Amino acid sequence: MMVKQINLNADMGESFGAYSMGNDPAMLTVVTSANVACGFHAGDPLVMRETVGLAFQNGVSVGAHPGFPDLQGFGRRRMALSASEVEAFVVVQIGALQAVAAAAGGRVTHVKPHGALSNIAAADDALATAIARAIAAVDKTLIFLAPACSAMARAGDAAGLSMAIEIFADRAYASDGQLVSRGQPGAMIHDPQAAQEHVLRMVREQALFPLAGGRIETPVDSICVHGDGPEALATARLVREGLTADGYALTPIPDLARLRLA
Amino acid sequence: MMVKQINLNADMGESFGAYSMGNDPAMLTVVTSANVACGFHAGDPLVMRETVGLAFQNGVSVGAHPGFPDLQGFGRRRMALSASEVEAFVVVQIGALQAVAAAAGGRVTHVKPHGALSNIAAADDALATAIARAIAAVDKTLIFLAPACSAMARAGDAAGLSMAIEIFADRAYASDGQLVSRGQPGAMIHDPQAAQEHVLRMVREQALFPLAGGRIETPVDSICVHGDGPEALATARLVREGLTADGYALTPIPDLARLRLA
Amino acid sequence: MMVKQINLNADMGESFGAYSMGNDPAMLTVVTSANVACGFHAGDPLVMRETVGLAFQNGVSVGAHPGFPDLQGFGRRRMALSASEVEAFVVVQIGALQAVAAAAGGRVTHVKPHGALSNIAAADDALATAIARAIAAVDKTLIFLAPACSAMARAGDAAGLSMAIEIFADRAYASDGQLVSRGQPGAMIHDPQAAQEHVLRMVREQALFPLAGGRIETPVDSICVHGDGPEALATARLVREGLTADGYALTPIPDLARLRLA
Amino acid sequence: MMVKQINLNADMGESFGAYSMGNDPAMLTVVTSANVACGFHAGDPLVMRETVGLAFQNGVSVGAHPGFPDLQGFGRRRMALSASEVEAFVVVQIGALQAVAAAAGGRVTHVKPHGALSNIAAADDALATAIARAIAAVDKTLIFLAPACSAMARAGDAAGLSMAIEIFADRAYASDGQLVSRGQPGAMIHDPQAAQEHVLRMVREQALFPLAGGRIETPVDSICVHGDGPEALATARLVREGLTADGYALTPIPDLARLRLA
Repeated sequence: MMVKQINLNADMGESFGAYSMGNDPAMLTVVTSANVACGFHAGDPLVMRETVGLAFQNGVSVGAHPGFPDLQGFGRRRMALSASEVEAFVVVQIGALQAVAAAAGGRVTHVKPHGALSNIAAADDALATAIARAIAAVDKTLIFLAPACSAMARAGDAAGLSMAIEIFADRAYASDGQLVSRGQPGAMIHDPQAAQEHVLRMVREQALFPLAGGRIETPVDSICVHGDGPEALATARLVREGLTADGYALTPIPDLARLRLA
Repeated sequence: MMVKQINLNADMGESFGAYSMGNDPAMLTVVTSANVACGFHAGDPLVMRETVGLAFQNGVSVGAHPGFPDLQGFGRRRMALSASEVEAFVVVQIGALQAVAAAAGGRVTHVKPHGALSNIAAADDALATAIARAIAAVDKTLIFLAPACSAMARAGDAAGLSMAIEIFADRAYASDGQLVSRGQPGAMIHDPQAAQEHVLRMVREQALFPLAGGRIETPVDSICVHGDGPEALATARLVREGLTADGYALTPIPDLARLRLA
Repeated sequence: MMVKQINLNADMGESFGAYSMGNDPAMLTVVTSANVACGFHAGDPLVMRETVGLAFQNGVSVGAHPGFPDLQGFGRRRMALSASEVEAFVVVQIGALQAVAAAAGGRVTHVKPHGALSNIAAADDALATAIARAIAAVDKTLIFLAPACSAMARAGDAAGLSMAIEIFADRAYASDGQLVSRGQPGAMIHDPQAAQEHVLRMVREQALFPLAGGRIETPVDSICVHGDGPEALATARLVREGLTADGYALTPIPDLARLRLA
Repeated sequence: MMVKQINLNADMGESFGAYSMGNDPAMLTVVTSANVACGFHAGDPLVMRETVGLAFQNGVSVGAHPGFPDLQGFGRRRMALSASEVEAFVVVQIGALQAVAAAAGGRVTHVKPHGALSNIAAADDALATAIARAIAAVDKTLIFLAPACSAMARAGDAAGLSMAIEIFADRAYASDGQLVSRGQPGAMIHDPQAAQEHVLRMVREQALFPLAGGRIETPVDSICVHGDGPEALATARLVREGLTADGYALTPIPDLARLRLA
């Protein structure tokens, strides 16, 4: 009998200089993959080195988490970069982390865009394609960790990249498979127990269940959890426990990426 | 009969955003290796991509040119980074350029520190060792392009890196083999003809000839020339012509790096 | 008989560190007001000091030219800053230049937004109001130099600020009084003679003449010219000569700002 | 009978974007003057606005806290800026905060350099003079808050600036009146009670008492306390209580600055 595999990922390495953010050591005991900031929206060479080293020590696989060049806005403000600019910025950020990983004796195995870049590219085919092109240009074996039902999922698949498809533990979905915007009622799932049930249903059924009703089929390879705040950490742990109880093996991304989405 | 080989290198990719610097297309017809800024003291992802692409089109080998994180000071201001910080900053800059090179279908083959980082590490064993360690940690096959008689030359050699040793076409040497400081009389060699003779003598004899007299034996694998200003370009061309007339084959760095200095 | 007054303004102080941009010394002999970059999209403390000093030596009045915090994009990329963020960013940039002007023995007398910030605020009432609020909060006597028919012109007027209304020498107007986008045919007026006639007609008639025909009444207090490239400088000089021949006195902004637009 | 006055100051506004630092709301109930970061080593326009607003609400006077342009190093790394560069950088940072204060309905009343800039200028007459010149050039009524026995104290006095002389609650002094370097044994005074006694002795006697013995006469107008960590806050409160018990009135800097040091 085949063991069912699932991945838990979280954003990490978001400290900068004297500024500390997140609770990476605790989260690294919960997740199996880390998306590490690359110095453009967060992180710096020292933080990158420390984060990657800690991840490898914990057996957590490392992905590049490229974002907009906007440290003061933490990459959360939309910026009008062209597809060509986005491609160049993603290439450089992947490379920076690859060298850090190599120096730590390991490898970057996936890429997941951050913040406003991810939000735009989730719905914008040109930017999604630029990101996929950047990943493929640097290293065709890198896995694109993309949100379910997003333009990035389609673009990565079209580019022939290995894909891992993620859902969000604490976010509700709209009828088109996109995330309900944070401002909207019901967008956020604050209760850890509710988040656990939300995740387990999507993972078991390999489908999204939009807030307004209905069902959207999608592969679900990974669950994105957050680590800032005690509730977030509790949610992450509860999601992990629920998946384990359900018979899933928690697995780093390279062990479960798939080559075709359909 | 063996052909004598020599390398000509110059700093490139120092433009930034809307700001243009240097004359890279012209210089790429003169030199055989380019030291490409990595976005910390100069350069940005778009400039890096354009520079690396142009270099490869011209058969010019590409090296990372890491510097201090000081764009406004162009990496020319001394900053008190610890050896551990320098190591992390160099790793990240090499990686950023490696990804750009990979995306362009090629490879970064050498590393040469920039500006104040280079000036400090030329005489500071701890920083020189940190740079050598960074290079080796990212990729042991990278060649360290280091100034003759510098702490970097010694540190790279001690770290087991392939080395290429450079001299400067337009700079006079002090009795300890270091560059005469720019403020000092005779530090700069402005006349292109004088620079050519200065270079040819050092290359033929594989030695430095300090301003105050004497002779210091050193391997000489590469000559650093500059491209900003019409005189600099004229000097670069004259140096190339002199070397060719002298029977040297102008060669990219990977074709002539040596494994041992002594 | 009253002398008719008109202002010529240009963006200046856009160099950064080792990077040079524009031809400020030449332009300062042509214009009567300078919009000086404040270090967020261009400029740095040394460039600000040099530019303001040169402007005062030439009897040219100095304005703050605040932009988005995006040096690599030169403030030309749209960024999704909230009105509250824009207000805070404009306040800080005005203040930085005010101190430089004070240290040079003079004063900042106007404010003109730059690049993408200006393009957005030309049509966005909330951002235009935020900019007007920032100006008034720092110093109610500062003059808002705003494009004809823009949301900024309306917002500044509504905030009770002294206003100067500008037209662009080298740009065509759309039927709503906004600039024709650069990509559109006819958007740019490259011929210096044509630009001169374009300006003189608008100044004489105190109206815009859209590309598609028609006429939009507007005060015209200032003409924005550019200095990058020999044609731009030629255009600026021709515009100045045309205005002088037409009987206008070229005047710094503080001498002609108006308190009411209608 | 005259009330004895003393000032308590602390660094504030050191958060940046999404990054939080310090405990400004609590510290603003303890100190009577705040040194506010100006965006070069810490702080940003939003943080500056919030900090200045909070300070004014608490009746705390506001000073500019200029530092090196090194956000990633938090202004703690030495950078080789020339005196002319330092002057320009200080001018701009003062101005940025002045505008924020004006927009909040108040004024910047003092200037205190930060981190490595302060450490260098404490002993370097040229940089100290550059800072004094910057302050005087922007506004001759600004008070220079300078460490006891420092080159800055001498330079400000020589420049005719109003001065306030500070001591550090948690640091021991060397025989030349400089701070004992952090690495040295006894450099830091961790015990809040010991810090209180250390402060009270210096304030009562208007003198420093070097670790190695002896006594150095100096005016003492202000005590610098820190707010990061619960011990620091406890120390700050204990120092305040001790001063109050000793009959001192805790006073903002503008109420006690002195025009002559000797």
